[in-house]
Amino acid sequence: MRAFFFLLTFLCSLALCGADGYQLWLRHRLIEDPTARQQYQRALSFVDAAVQGPTGNSAVRELRSGLTNLLGTAPATSPAKKRSQGIYLGLRQSSSRIRQYLQSNAVEDLGPEGYHLASYQGDVLLIADQEQGLLYGVFDLLRAIQTGEDLTNLQRTERPAYQYRILNHWDNLDGTVERGYAGFSIWNWHQLPEFIDQRYVDYARACASVGINGTVVTNVNANSLVFRADYLEKAAALADVFRPYGIKLYLTARFSSPVELGGLPTADPLDPQVIAWWKSKAAEIYARIPDFGGFVVKANSEGQPGPREYGRSHAEGANVLADALAPHGGIVVWRAFVYTDKAGGDRFREAYDEFTPLDGAFRKNVLLQIKNGPIDFQPREPVSPLFAAMPQTPLLLEFQITKEYLGQGTHLVGMASLYTEVLGTDLAPNQAGGEIREYITGMAGVSNIGTARNWTGNLFGQADWYAFGRLSWGPELPANTIFREWAKLTFGPDPTVVTTVTELLEKSYPACVNYMTPLGLHHIMATGHHYGPGPWIDDLERDDWNPYYYHGATRDSVGFDRKASGSKALAQYPAEFARQFLDPTTCPPEFLLWFHRLPWTFALPNGNSLWQELGLSYQRGVDQVAEMQTLWASLENRVDRERHLHVSQHLAIQAKEARWWRDACLAYFSAVSGLPIPAGVTPPKHSLEYYRSLVYPYAPGIRPQW
Amino acid sequence: MRAFFFLLTFLCSLALCGADGYQLWLRHRLIEDPTARQQYQRALSFVDAAVQGPTGNSAVRELRSGLTNLLGTAPATSPAKKRSQGIYLGLRQSSSRIRQYLQSNAVEDLGPEGYHLASYQGDVLLIADQEQGLLYGVFDLLRAIQTGEDLTNLQRTERPAYQYRILNHWDNLDGTVERGYAGFSIWNWHQLPEFIDQRYVDYARACASVGINGTVVTNVNANSLVFRADYLEKAAALADVFRPYGIKLYLTARFSSPVELGGLPTADPLDPQVIAWWKSKAAEIYARIPDFGGFVVKANSEGQPGPREYGRSHAEGANVLADALAPHGGIVVWRAFVYTDKAGGDRFREAYDEFTPLDGAFRKNVLLQIKNGPIDFQPREPVSPLFAAMPQTPLLLEFQITKEYLGQGTHLVGMASLYTEVLGTDLAPNQAGGEIREYITGMAGVSNIGTARNWTGNLFGQADWYAFGRLSWGPELPANTIFREWAKLTFGPDPTVVTTVTELLEKSYPACVNYMTPLGLHHIMATGHHYGPGPWIDDLERDDWNPYYYHGATRDSVGFDRKASGSKALAQYPAEFARQFLDPTTCPPEFLLWFHRLPWTFALPNGNSLWQELGLSYQRGVDQVAEMQTLWASLENRVDRERHLHVSQHLAIQAKEARWWRDACLAYFSAVSGLPIPAGVTPPKHSLEYYRSLVYPYAPGIRPQW
Repeated sequence: MRAFFFLLTFLCSLALCGADGYQLWLRHRLIEDPTARQQYQRALSFVDAAVQGPTGNSAVRELRSGLTNLLGTAPATSPAKKRSQGIYLGLRQSSSRIRQYLQSNAVEDLGPEGYHLASYQGDVLLIADQEQGLLYGVFDLLRAIQTGEDLTNLQRTERPAYQYRILNHWDNLDGTVERGYAGFSIWNWHQLPEFIDQRYVDYARACASVGINGTVVTNVNANSLVFRADYLEKAAALADVFRPYGIKLYLTARFSSPVELGGLPTADPLDPQVIAWWKSKAAEIYARIPDFGGFVVKANSEGQPGPREYGRSHAEGANVLADALAPHGGIVVWRAFVYTDKAGGDRFREAYDEFTPLDGAFRKNVLLQIKNGPIDFQPREPVSPLFAAMPQTPLLLEFQITKEYLGQGTHLVGMASLYTEVLGTDLAPNQAGGEIREYITGMAGVSNIGTARNWTGNLFGQADWYAFGRLSWGPELPANTIFREWAKLTFGPDPTVVTTVTELLEKSYPACVNYMTPLGLHHIMATGHHYGPGPWIDDLERDDWNPYYYHGATRDSVGFDRKASGSKALAQYPAEFARQFLDPTTCPPEFLLWFHRLPWTFALPNGNSLWQELGLSYQRGVDQVAEMQTLWASLENRVDRERHLHVSQHLAIQAKEARWWRDACLAYFSAVSGLPIPAGVTPPKHSLEYYRSLVYPYAPGIRPQW
Repeated sequence: MRAFFFLLTFLCSLALCGADGYQLWLRHRLIEDPTARQQYQRALSFVDAAVQGPTGNSAVRELRSGLTNLLGTAPATSPAKKRSQGIYLGLRQSSSRIRQYLQSNAVEDLGPEGYHLASYQGDVLLIADQEQGLLYGVFDLLRAIQTGEDLTNLQRTERPAYQYRILNHWDNLDGTVERGYAGFSIWNWHQLPEFIDQRYVDYARACASVGINGTVVTNVNANSLVFRADYLEKAAALADVFRPYGIKLYLTARFSSPVELGGLPTADPLDPQVIAWWKSKAAEIYARIPDFGGFVVKANSEGQPGPREYGRSHAEGANVLADALAPHGGIVVWRAFVYTDKAGGDRFREAYDEFTPLDGAFRKNVLLQIKNGPIDFQPREPVSPLFAAMPQTPLLLEFQITKEYLGQGTHLVGMASLYTEVLGTDLAPNQAGGEIREYITGMAGVSNIGTARNWTGNLFGQADWYAFGRLSWGPELPANTIFREWAKLTFGPDPTVVTTVTELLEKSYPACVNYMTPLGLHHIMATGHHYGPGPWIDDLERDDWNPYYYHGATRDSVGFDRKASGSKALAQYPAEFARQFLDPTTCPPEFLLWFHRLPWTFALPNGNSLWQELGLSYQRGVDQVAEMQTLWASLENRVDRERHLHVSQHLAIQAKEARWWRDACLAYFSAVSGLPIPAGVTPPKHSLEYYRSLVYPYAPGIRPQW
């Protein structure tokens, strides 16, 4: 009776709060299957931990609370009786049990963040060389239990592929988030340093649990105010929260800070006063934040100040900051996303043209951060040619986790598909190790996190944050594996749910590309907020701001010629990689209009004309979203009501907007080409004028327009 | 063993989510005392409900889930055995049991929202004349159980004092909140109407539970876009969520909408096209929202458009909107917060001078909404003289729940003290029924709600939302009663916690007045964001925008003469009420500088000079905050860690800022008066120049400054 009574209240309390998504993938629910639960209880009856530092202590705290919630009982701190089984956790020399294991088992160097997990004579051992490795090992072990892994043959060594695994928050000091679709910034600068929101701790836990070890808390469109003493004190308070979870804090540096904040007449990087200002500012920061990560800089791009105002190169600019940070062990992350202020030329080319001459000119502690594609986080882009062109410069790959161009706050799009496609792109098909993932030393992800109760607004946005972290640790993980993991951790072990959610995620990315930008169309979103289609826009100041510029559709043809006959951007790739794109008849159709200008009548390998295929692709995207809705609907009684309704409502918006994209784009291209809507494609619901007339002044993601 | 095991997981699950504040005062935790729990279980074993409409159904749903969570068992739908006791709920004629009771017990007319609660032969009866009354009765009953009330002698009839009990959200369509300190707007206009956030439902539940029956979801600084067809569809979706909880939706009407949205050449209220535009817009709204509440209008105030641009009066402007709404049963709420664009004059006077000539000129369905004080939500203001001056016009009293001038997002200030002081202020001391609460037909409260997980950012801000609602239903409730109720509902029954939290709340308001604006100082906050002190500011365009204007401190004297010798504003009050303020030697000290300009040497009743008393008041405010910190610290082991830490951190900010106010204001007034800091007052920590130099460009609550 009492048991039943507690069960009931327990379930009620879950109903009240269990399904709001706040707990992310760290939803350590009681394991429902009693057999499995008892096995784990027996095998993990104690946690024998030997740790010293704050990171080790977080590891043990996470393990204890995780086990308590998963198994329903708190683990002991040592074996209760002679035969009881449990977990031994520590550095190599920390406990006799671990030393004993290492005598008979060779475990190679684990590095500063790696760990070794092994089952040994019925116990589970977690071994690391430094305590940060224990933290990652703990989250791995908890994940193994959550996903029902058999621990009896545990035997694995894990090391992160990259030293730099960093989130970029485009968060402004006033609380707004650029390209943010999940509410306000979670950083309450106004109430820092005194008020430490529980969210800051849970944020650090979530990041650490997927291997993220750095965070840039300010927008790349930077504000020099963050270098003011009181703001550095606020930043230091955040760093203090992140430190025990192995996360370093970075700040964006506005290049003109010496003028705006320092009151100097110039920010010329070669001016002695400017050099001195950066040195002393760096010293001031490290006095407050001894493990400060460094500066991230967006310079001479989209109106941001930079070295070129003073006739200096990006290298000259970056090196001054790098020299200021070097004595303290900090780095400069310099963004390659720049394009000249003067119009004309092909923006696809610009980062390459700007930076390749500078390869080798940067200090050792400067990293170049390159967006995955040459233009700007489009639904589908060929990779940036820069990755293969900076052999002497350490590179970070920048992905967008927030979905500025992929449905923003509402569309379900499993970004892991995009990430893995890029990471696996082979720039040197004829030799080994030519994949993008081999060229880089780290990954940066533009955060999709905000004050929404579930962090990402769209529940499935959590999967993108999760995927970015997991891939920054193990870039060879297949998307499918990540989707399955996330599905289990988020919705529990029901195999039907796991399989269906995984299928949903796998279908979602191709669907989005189809209903937004099939066949290599790109940058045809409405201007500013980028919400919805705007392929007709051609009245903006400079041509490469206009969607029209990127397809140039006429009565006869469409597409952007980047071959030798055109902008020659294709020549920026290694020849053996570029080859696949040269001939439109063999070019992968998904990239066709990125590189070729073709007649609407151009015949594709499948026999369809370009125009037919364009129409059918849009239609396919719409149909695929409908399939996604059906898949999710099938889980109605297997997922809690609150989350099921949440996702169903967002899918309804996605379906509506997929039709909007299809109808608006086909109405436009049909009007331009004079061709009728192809057979098998639902004709547009409204006139082109109607779609052109739609205005959304308060679409989220940009600074509010008053 | 199993019982223990479930208890443990139950507690863990609470630890994970129980203390984030999202559940507000509807935190229906399991009653811990087994004896009390079993008594309630026996007395409330079933819910026999006879309801038809959506509101009745919400009432039953709330009662069932509330009982299930409080008692740990779900109530049956009818008596299990002959002798079992339970709840009968319905309209007068709905069930035999209720009819039986009414034969022997006369229950007078309950009106559309009232209810009768009675214990009858061991059962509990909840009776109403309309189903909305059942909803309020259910929340009353649940509150009674949460607070441990004995139900055996239940016998009460409740009716709201006012027909209009309305929240005003100063929320912009882009998601920002003017004077909001709890994150973004909870209204996600962009994703409406398809996406219905669970928050909308929980918001409606919380409002209904304290008697609120209307909500204005848009800012009084209005945007005509909300009248565009797609936005009306979004608004209708919100109205659909609110309807089952008895809450009507209102929108703010921008007076220039006929021009901005309608494309008319004018918004002149007497122009036939304009009249027609408002009529058809009203019809369009009611076609989507049959129970639409009406328009709230801020006209010709702080840059908002209005009738005076066309040489028309506020009455002529309001009546056109009123005529458009009248056929549908809607009202116009016209705000009295206006002041002329031309400088000079005493702003204290302006609303009175503007509106008293119009008394009787408004349509029957126009209500005038008057802020509690004549200036602007100051920490302590004398009441607005308008309340007694508009006998032919129905009046709404406007309070601020968000604390623009009372510590904003961090200070703990129990606003019920302010509300009850105003409601109880007697404008006709020599006759009965002269209290402000007798002059009004409703209350409006400027919301403090945002996307913060706990809704109000500052946990104790929940108490202000709660207090506003309870007082709009029962304006005679003492603050102490409200504080006790809220403390029990929020932190549970522990008498030490309840007593301490109540004491904390009672101390808080006088403390805030002391450390910000003692002795009748007012409007001396920093300009724009109003964050922190700025008594020295005197360089703004028009004099009455300058804090200096409101005290005019010189070497000799300080204060604002509003007597016959000054602005004559005092003459706007009924003579018998004004009398108490006329003579500075008998004027209540808390209002002294509101009405008198006095030498620093002026002797107060207690023998102190004005200067001494000013200093000692600031010191007292600082000391009182320290006492509040001590009180809260004493609850460390009686309140869950998360909420205790949350409040402790905010109290630390309040203590720091209280010292800031004391030091900055005394440094300034000491410099002006040339008088030394009085004995018994801690001298300012920094120079006046230091305090004048502080700038906070991103203090929250105003539209972001780029």
